[in-house]
Amino acid sequence: MIPRYSRPRMTAIWDSENRYKIWMEIETLAAEAMAELGTIPKEVPVAVRARGNFDVARIEEIEAETKHDVIAFLTNLAEYVGEEARFVHQGMTSSDVLDTCLAVQLTQACDILLEDMDAVLAALKKRAYEHKDTVMVGRSHGIHAEPVTFGLKLAGFYAEFDRGRKRLVAAREEIATCAISGAVGTFAHLDPYVEEYVAAKLGLKPEPMSTQVIPRDRHAAFFAALGVIASSVEHLATEIRHLQRTEVREAEEYFSPGQKGSSAMPHKRNPVLTENLCGLARIVRAAVVPAMENVALWHERDISHSSVERMIGPDATVTLDFALARLASVVDKLVVYPDRMQANLDMLGGLVHSQQVLLELTQKGMSREGAYKAVQRNAMDSWLNSKNYKALLAADEEVAQFLKPADLDKLFDLGQHTRHVDTIFKRVFGE
Amino acid sequence: MIPRYSRPRMTAIWDSENRYKIWMEIETLAAEAMAELGTIPKEVPVAVRARGNFDVARIEEIEAETKHDVIAFLTNLAEYVGEEARFVHQGMTSSDVLDTCLAVQLTQACDILLEDMDAVLAALKKRAYEHKDTVMVGRSHGIHAEPVTFGLKLAGFYAEFDRGRKRLVAAREEIATCAISGAVGTFAHLDPYVEEYVAAKLGLKPEPMSTQVIPRDRHAAFFAALGVIASSVEHLATEIRHLQRTEVREAEEYFSPGQKGSSAMPHKRNPVLTENLCGLARIVRAAVVPAMENVALWHERDISHSSVERMIGPDATVTLDFALARLASVVDKLVVYPDRMQANLDMLGGLVHSQQVLLELTQKGMSREGAYKAVQRNAMDSWLNSKNYKALLAADEEVAQFLKPADLDKLFDLGQHTRHVDTIFKRVFGE
Amino acid sequence: MIPRYSRPRMTAIWDSENRYKIWMEIETLAAEAMAELGTIPKEVPVAVRARGNFDVARIEEIEAETKHDVIAFLTNLAEYVGEEARFVHQGMTSSDVLDTCLAVQLTQACDILLEDMDAVLAALKKRAYEHKDTVMVGRSHGIHAEPVTFGLKLAGFYAEFDRGRKRLVAAREEIATCAISGAVGTFAHLDPYVEEYVAAKLGLKPEPMSTQVIPRDRHAAFFAALGVIASSVEHLATEIRHLQRTEVREAEEYFSPGQKGSSAMPHKRNPVLTENLCGLARIVRAAVVPAMENVALWHERDISHSSVERMIGPDATVTLDFALARLASVVDKLVVYPDRMQANLDMLGGLVHSQQVLLELTQKGMSREGAYKAVQRNAMDSWLNSKNYKALLAADEEVAQFLKPADLDKLFDLGQHTRHVDTIFKRVFGE
Amino acid sequence: MIPRYSRPRMTAIWDSENRYKIWMEIETLAAEAMAELGTIPKEVPVAVRARGNFDVARIEEIEAETKHDVIAFLTNLAEYVGEEARFVHQGMTSSDVLDTCLAVQLTQACDILLEDMDAVLAALKKRAYEHKDTVMVGRSHGIHAEPVTFGLKLAGFYAEFDRGRKRLVAAREEIATCAISGAVGTFAHLDPYVEEYVAAKLGLKPEPMSTQVIPRDRHAAFFAALGVIASSVEHLATEIRHLQRTEVREAEEYFSPGQKGSSAMPHKRNPVLTENLCGLARIVRAAVVPAMENVALWHERDISHSSVERMIGPDATVTLDFALARLASVVDKLVVYPDRMQANLDMLGGLVHSQQVLLELTQKGMSREGAYKAVQRNAMDSWLNSKNYKALLAADEEVAQFLKPADLDKLFDLGQHTRHVDTIFKRVFGE
Repeated sequence: MIPRYSRPRMTAIWDSENRYKIWMEIETLAAEAMAELGTIPKEVPVAVRARGNFDVARIEEIEAETKHDVIAFLTNLAEYVGEEARFVHQGMTSSDVLDTCLAVQLTQACDILLEDMDAVLAALKKRAYEHKDTVMVGRSHGIHAEPVTFGLKLAGFYAEFDRGRKRLVAAREEIATCAISGAVGTFAHLDPYVEEYVAAKLGLKPEPMSTQVIPRDRHAAFFAALGVIASSVEHLATEIRHLQRTEVREAEEYFSPGQKGSSAMPHKRNPVLTENLCGLARIVRAAVVPAMENVALWHERDISHSSVERMIGPDATVTLDFALARLASVVDKLVVYPDRMQANLDMLGGLVHSQQVLLELTQKGMSREGAYKAVQRNAMDSWLNSKNYKALLAADEEVAQFLKPADLDKLFDLGQHTRHVDTIFKRVFGE
Repeated sequence: MIPRYSRPRMTAIWDSENRYKIWMEIETLAAEAMAELGTIPKEVPVAVRARGNFDVARIEEIEAETKHDVIAFLTNLAEYVGEEARFVHQGMTSSDVLDTCLAVQLTQACDILLEDMDAVLAALKKRAYEHKDTVMVGRSHGIHAEPVTFGLKLAGFYAEFDRGRKRLVAAREEIATCAISGAVGTFAHLDPYVEEYVAAKLGLKPEPMSTQVIPRDRHAAFFAALGVIASSVEHLATEIRHLQRTEVREAEEYFSPGQKGSSAMPHKRNPVLTENLCGLARIVRAAVVPAMENVALWHERDISHSSVERMIGPDATVTLDFALARLASVVDKLVVYPDRMQANLDMLGGLVHSQQVLLELTQKGMSREGAYKAVQRNAMDSWLNSKNYKALLAADEEVAQFLKPADLDKLFDLGQHTRHVDTIFKRVFGE
Repeated sequence: MIPRYSRPRMTAIWDSENRYKIWMEIETLAAEAMAELGTIPKEVPVAVRARGNFDVARIEEIEAETKHDVIAFLTNLAEYVGEEARFVHQGMTSSDVLDTCLAVQLTQACDILLEDMDAVLAALKKRAYEHKDTVMVGRSHGIHAEPVTFGLKLAGFYAEFDRGRKRLVAAREEIATCAISGAVGTFAHLDPYVEEYVAAKLGLKPEPMSTQVIPRDRHAAFFAALGVIASSVEHLATEIRHLQRTEVREAEEYFSPGQKGSSAMPHKRNPVLTENLCGLARIVRAAVVPAMENVALWHERDISHSSVERMIGPDATVTLDFALARLASVVDKLVVYPDRMQANLDMLGGLVHSQQVLLELTQKGMSREGAYKAVQRNAMDSWLNSKNYKALLAADEEVAQFLKPADLDKLFDLGQHTRHVDTIFKRVFGE
Repeated sequence: MIPRYSRPRMTAIWDSENRYKIWMEIETLAAEAMAELGTIPKEVPVAVRARGNFDVARIEEIEAETKHDVIAFLTNLAEYVGEEARFVHQGMTSSDVLDTCLAVQLTQACDILLEDMDAVLAALKKRAYEHKDTVMVGRSHGIHAEPVTFGLKLAGFYAEFDRGRKRLVAAREEIATCAISGAVGTFAHLDPYVEEYVAAKLGLKPEPMSTQVIPRDRHAAFFAALGVIASSVEHLATEIRHLQRTEVREAEEYFSPGQKGSSAMPHKRNPVLTENLCGLARIVRAAVVPAMENVALWHERDISHSSVERMIGPDATVTLDFALARLASVVDKLVVYPDRMQANLDMLGGLVHSQQVLLELTQKGMSREGAYKAVQRNAMDSWLNSKNYKALLAADEEVAQFLKPADLDKLFDLGQHTRHVDTIFKRVFGE
């Protein structure tokens, strides 16, 4: 996470300010529950609500001495609240605050990421419908295959990001749990009701079984979900980079009028945003293995996961947020060149229709071998000598026995390839 | 995947035999649908059902020539079926067969993994209830903290594996899709109905939008789910390795009477199974990043993912199957030493109860600072001079003002730590 | 490692046959050293040399009973050698045999990989010289930049693989150590001379300090070196895939006359080999993190690394061997289309020379801003209206003040871009 | 990289200040070389040396407009230098500055890391000699095996970190190259001499063949070397965590008198530093795969690697610097408990000597089977009934035929296990 690839809304989640704010809410809610149970005086939560406050600089000052962040926070809190503060945090362990806070931060981050996904999806959908019928060549192995439409391509990415969104919703559920269970998770010094109360108020679920810490398989699953989404970002970014190649030039990242790619070469509009997205994807993905290595904590807990999460928590969410926002904008403003698409499609003189011809010849009764030879003979002639493939077929006597010019027209009709676009759109967009 | 860490039921899924069997079913079902639509003669699927067969050796022979596995298969199939075979596979592309087959194999693999998870869960549950009340020391940072029970520990792992199971169910759904959509996924040469028909018969869903291939974010999510489960395997295995250390010796992997650890040293019962599980976890996890790197295929597809999947498909599923089966057996037969657990718990003369004393002193009205000093003063004396902590507290005049011997008995009562075990078990096991 | 991506010479290294052969050599050499020291009778190594033998099936039979591979081997060896066999392996631990054997296997594997690298280097060098002066457009961001030559491109890859080779030599040295140091590496039951003797005879160095096992940072460094080479394989393979795109078509993987890409479409020569290489690179790279996770063994050793190495040892070396051999062949037989390179270079009507014009205008005294405007004005006109850039510049009055037609010819001369090719070749090839 | 795990000396390398300082030096040196060649006026480098300066805030201001960091820098530089600045950077491309700067930063970082390694090595050596003869039990699989010394253990780590240091030296050489070769690396607009001159002055080597960018296999190898060192950090940290376990307590991280582990439990000295080091190792290692994924840039370059390096460059070096410094301090101040080591060694009543007894019985002529039975019979009795093993052997009639009490004393003498410590120390420390 570096400023260059960060957006303030997401970085704010990981600020000290937000963290202490969440801590205070957790402590206050826990005090409310304890007061309700009669474990601590009723006045305590009232006092904390009334006078509770914190000062980041002051906390850091105290922490420099005590070397303990939660104690520093509580000391500072007590400076505002006064005498009642001694009942705050009673029976709790630091991890109750830290892990529940992380859960809140990750759900907050997740909510932004879900909005980001929605923006990507909206852009993809808009552009998909806009180019539903914009024909272009489909490419397998980077080699021309058969026609598709640009809208179809985008619809495929829509479906992919939609799956990513669903995984994100599931990932959010994974990490949205609250633990207020004490030193080793046994509720030895406080009632499970406290956890239930705090969880409910924070929109979390009580962690069924914590061991001072919330189990880290949850976080591993969370970061893995981000890693898969990052891979989809790389997928779409790679597609655009390909389309923008000088020789292909079917689409381009938007260039503002004043923007310079290369000062002197107007064609030098580099797909720097999507290249950048490919790099960012690698960074988000880099969080996955460390998060998995964090799972095997020793016994009831060790603290090896903590430094990892202090870094990958912000890194992965901030970077993915930035990447998704950038991607949505790239898609939204992508400059599409239907003429170039058509030109590339026509580049090979109709050879992309050869499979269709082959099928039809077989259907019409020609032997598979015969059909294959006829199709290939003319394809080779067209390819090597840059002749029009349809004309060659029309002139081929053997072919003519099975296919009339009108048949050929039908076979070379792009409609053959686009007739199920609506079906696919309905599947993808449900409408 | 190597024989040493493989089980035949899972490896069979990845055998040529099973692969061709699935291919034949896909081709047959597709032919049925096409015949139903009238695209090909009604006799075709009938003939294929009646005479369809294949011979692995013969296919390999043909493939050696044609360098194309699906064509080799179809040629061999035709040798059994005869003339009608020419209508088989019409309008389809090899990937329609390959990707749908992979979906079937992965779901088959998933079903075994789900059974494996059930076995692990069953073993954990059985042993958890058996040791629900077997007290032992809880350890944070490898250092004695407060008491837990061995049953609680296992319940925590049950909850973790239960989450893993849920992720596996979701992962299964991710990859259970069928693509019969032709060269670039446009259904240019066949009707979407064929895909729907085949999908339904195979227990899959039609892929909403394929591009010759099923999009690889699905597979990335699948392998990521396996990676998280593998990390949980490492988690539990690490726990057992710790418990089996010579100095701890609270549990041991089962040793058959005849088995030799070290010939001459009877204490040399090495936790080799759980150490092995930690290694296997690394292998399963190694599939995650390549699977994510597979997502960004070029345009409608390239074939870079194929070699990766040919290896990680079997590797990850076979290894995880083996690991889970081994883990279930380790848990099921784990030799537990409650006496050693009690002995370790008592090792520090009751110091594990100091937080409870501290809390109670505060509750009884002693100042936090005073309580802390009293608790620590006696704790240090106990620790440095190996004295009984409870006795020291009883003899401390300041403490005595707040706590009577009966109070101390209550504070040193393990019941304090186990009173919520039932609550937690209910949360975890739902009963 | 699967047969499809394996070559017999490398897989043979990982066969039982080779493993037991190495074990026998280690045991025999160790016996020779011990006999020399007088620790065991002189007859022992003589007998083992004379009658020592093994039978893989028989060893497996014994292992099925004893569950211990080294004991099974020794038992079988004794069946051939007789009475003297009881002195074999004296004071040694199984790991002495296993780890030293792995060192031998990895150096054997490394030697093949070094040959593979030599083949790649030879192919690159040959083709680099062949196309030293074959001009083509250089591309940054996939967008035309300035001219390069295809030979230069290959020279760059030569330099990269040459670095990979050096790393491989260093990696070989890392893992070429021998440990015969007993149960915990203290030589408690045998003399360090035994290790020195065996090491020397096997072409290894004695491990300065083993702890039953050879430390695993060595292996981590080894697999990391393979991972970097695999990434270079991906790099070169990606380059070729790009050059083979339909729209670029500057080079193609060799297609044998009989080979079919797509049956009916002659242009459908898919870069399947290089796509495959990209996948194989991911697999080799997947060994890196597990190998690093293997480093942190517990105390003097645990056995978690073993299962990992049983898989990644063969997987990474066999796959990289296959990949390098395939790559050498792809480069060697690559079909290059200089005409297409020239055509693509000319595609933009000389715009690739604009930076040169800009520089010259400044050199000739035009202000930077003025020069920039002049260059850009004409570039835009050329780009948008497909006009010849050089002609536009010649007709531009402002430009004409500084540049004569002859100057323009010089600026548009490709020689400007190729004049240092020899220098670079000398740097790379040292000749 | 976050402040909590950063040290100012390393973070300063990655500051804007340092980056621009390096840029200015590169531009100045390049100008000197060009002036020497006569390409630009002699006054230019003189002016830049005399008046060259920059202002970070001002550069950022300009960059906000131009969106180009190098242009912003040059503009700001011109504000200080004046007219002569127009000749600066002539014929160069931004990457010439950026990549050469990165090389300088990485070598600077490497130099600090080498010092860090030296500190770790010094601490290990000091403590190794201090505890050369401090006996303790060696453990395989976490189970008591045979005696070692604590000094030996540390010597093993010394050797491991010494290898890491050598790899770091090699890694430094990998990335210490300079590229001043223009738009696509052909020196089309400047003489190779410029690169040679700048390289020599900066202590770098000219990159034999750059393509606008320095090839990224170099950086991949660099980060891989850091990843292996990080794994060694994890290795040593894991060892210490094990030794500090409550039940083992043979060593402890130093606790300052005022420091609180747990307020009330004096035994609760948690190995938080070494746990933290395990987490930091995961973070450093996380840079390895992205760095490898960076290698396969498209054609002469794309910019996907840039965002990755902007993050992993600082992250990996800063985190490893912090980790090594922390590790050196942990080792240096580690509190060692020889009494506890002795107590644990004695825990099993001499069973750790059983292999020695077995060997000696065989040496003395007892049959292998007989010796084995005798050793095991007494070992089982000792183990199950907590009897003294040596006494049992002495009382065993069959054993007594071969071993006299004096023989037993010798066999139970720890000297047997420590007699080669000097040899090993000499191997490791060379003295």
